[in-house]
Amino acid sequence: MPLVSFQLDGRPHLGKLFGDHVVDLAALGPQMPSTVIDFLAAGSSALTAFQALEDAGLPHVALRDLHLLPPVPNPEKYLGIGLNYRDHASEAAKAGLQAPSSQLWFNKQVSCIIGPFDGVVKPAVSQQLDYEVELAVVIGRRCRNVSSAAARDVIGGYMVANDVSARDWQFRSATITLGKSFDTHGPTGPWLTLAHEIDDPHTLDIRMFVNGEQRQSSNTRHMIHNIFEQISYLSTVMTLKPGDILATGTPAGVGMASDPPRFLSIGDVMRAEISAIGFIENIVVADENAEQSAD
Amino acid sequence: MPLVSFQLDGRPHLGKLFGDHVVDLAALGPQMPSTVIDFLAAGSSALTAFQALEDAGLPHVALRDLHLLPPVPNPEKYLGIGLNYRDHASEAAKAGLQAPSSQLWFNKQVSCIIGPFDGVVKPAVSQQLDYEVELAVVIGRRCRNVSSAAARDVIGGYMVANDVSARDWQFRSATITLGKSFDTHGPTGPWLTLAHEIDDPHTLDIRMFVNGEQRQSSNTRHMIHNIFEQISYLSTVMTLKPGDILATGTPAGVGMASDPPRFLSIGDVMRAEISAIGFIENIVVADENAEQSAD
Repeated sequence: MPLVSFQLDGRPHLGKLFGDHVVDLAALGPQMPSTVIDFLAAGSSALTAFQALEDAGLPHVALRDLHLLPPVPNPEKYLGIGLNYRDHASEAAKAGLQAPSSQLWFNKQVSCIIGPFDGVVKPAVSQQLDYEVELAVVIGRRCRNVSSAAARDVIGGYMVANDVSARDWQFRSATITLGKSFDTHGPTGPWLTLAHEIDDPHTLDIRMFVNGEQRQSSNTRHMIHNIFEQISYLSTVMTLKPGDILATGTPAGVGMASDPPRFLSIGDVMRAEISAIGFIENIVVADENAEQSAD
Repeated sequence: MPLVSFQLDGRPHLGKLFGDHVVDLAALGPQMPSTVIDFLAAGSSALTAFQALEDAGLPHVALRDLHLLPPVPNPEKYLGIGLNYRDHASEAAKAGLQAPSSQLWFNKQVSCIIGPFDGVVKPAVSQQLDYEVELAVVIGRRCRNVSSAAARDVIGGYMVANDVSARDWQFRSATITLGKSFDTHGPTGPWLTLAHEIDDPHTLDIRMFVNGEQRQSSNTRHMIHNIFEQISYLSTVMTLKPGDILATGTPAGVGMASDPPRFLSIGDVMRAEISAIGFIENIVVADENAEQSAD
């Protein structure tokens, strides 16, 4: 059962999803964590209590009544790998992007993360807003120099991510990070599907629909660098920590690769879904915050 | 007087530096923040109390006895701008790096941050370890869409940073972030010089010495995009928050631009200094952590 992060009384709560309703982990006592990072950092103690939690007899709330939060709103790191599906690397090559000779990592700024059904802003300063459905891995254990063979053990769980991209900003700089990092351009969720629930993360169907029309459809088996190789490579450089998010690449079918390109407009609805996890759905909204602000 | 972050009894403390000794802000009462992010987020209340704090009559500790911490060990974001001094852009062009047509931003992963006198690891997997002295700006107020004219008001303070770079990893990918992000490759400090202490951040002498030999020497007036333009540009994309670190570029004289290149070896001592702020000094140490680890 997935681990659900939701808002109640103005605070984040964690719950366990049973079909159409959620049992609040607070029912297990005040020692239970209320955030995914704390849950993962607590290790087996929290996981064991979570797995033992039964539906019967505990108070619960209807899923449809909950405001779902991003499972990890404040990771230390949110990294994405570029051009990691064969078909997407091919369509990008037609657009002039050279296939990288090694794993191509960039940052989405942590400040862009939003929940699974929150609105995505079309920036007033961008005319090329685009979508990318991705399987997101959430790191479960602090680690460094992890071999590919051992990488599975440091995964905490999986989410659906939409690596929303402002292509005009992305291509203005080889480092691409600004085009990946506008506020609200990091929808994630709908919850954390814990690592043990997915036998093989390289067998999942992955799809993006815009206004109901299928735009991307592939399977995670088509990754060029698989998830374990990604974790191994990154951890050669840096310590990975519970909650760190890795967006593992997008398949073909992004808007910029259409001929002519098809960019997003205000009112468009993006639905990103991955089998065995679920879907997130985000509407494109107008930029109401183009004015200067400072607290 | 600078705001000093130091370790005492296993916890972070903030203090005010008076010459060769530091007065602990805890002397002002338990309501005073103990981290720079909390200090900045508290706004004028903390700043006013800090400015009013006098040396006389309060307990203090000798600076030389303190273990100084990185002023901001856990910012939400640590961003750096590439090729932002004219002379460095020229030397990089000779090495084949094209001058960017707009601001070139990359991330240093937050996990690489260390204190002003901590050791920098020469990774076993890199043969091209290099230094870059930079003026680091710490954001003081949450903000978005800030004009260049208003950008000064959102600066919390300044530090010296050494943007340690593994050039072989940096040039393996156009996004460059992995070569900038090895654990320990983010020395910062020696403290936070508060914004109001620096009349004009574009008049500061900036220097790097390796084993006492001057390698870089310039002045912040030679930036291509000045600090206010940097803040304005970034805040067009993302919300900046108290504690966010911006490394504002390095001048000419990096090791890779020497002919032949001069990369760092174990035992080398890097001293990065900026007038009106101070210096940080970091020795290159061997990679003792090349073994796999996971908590």
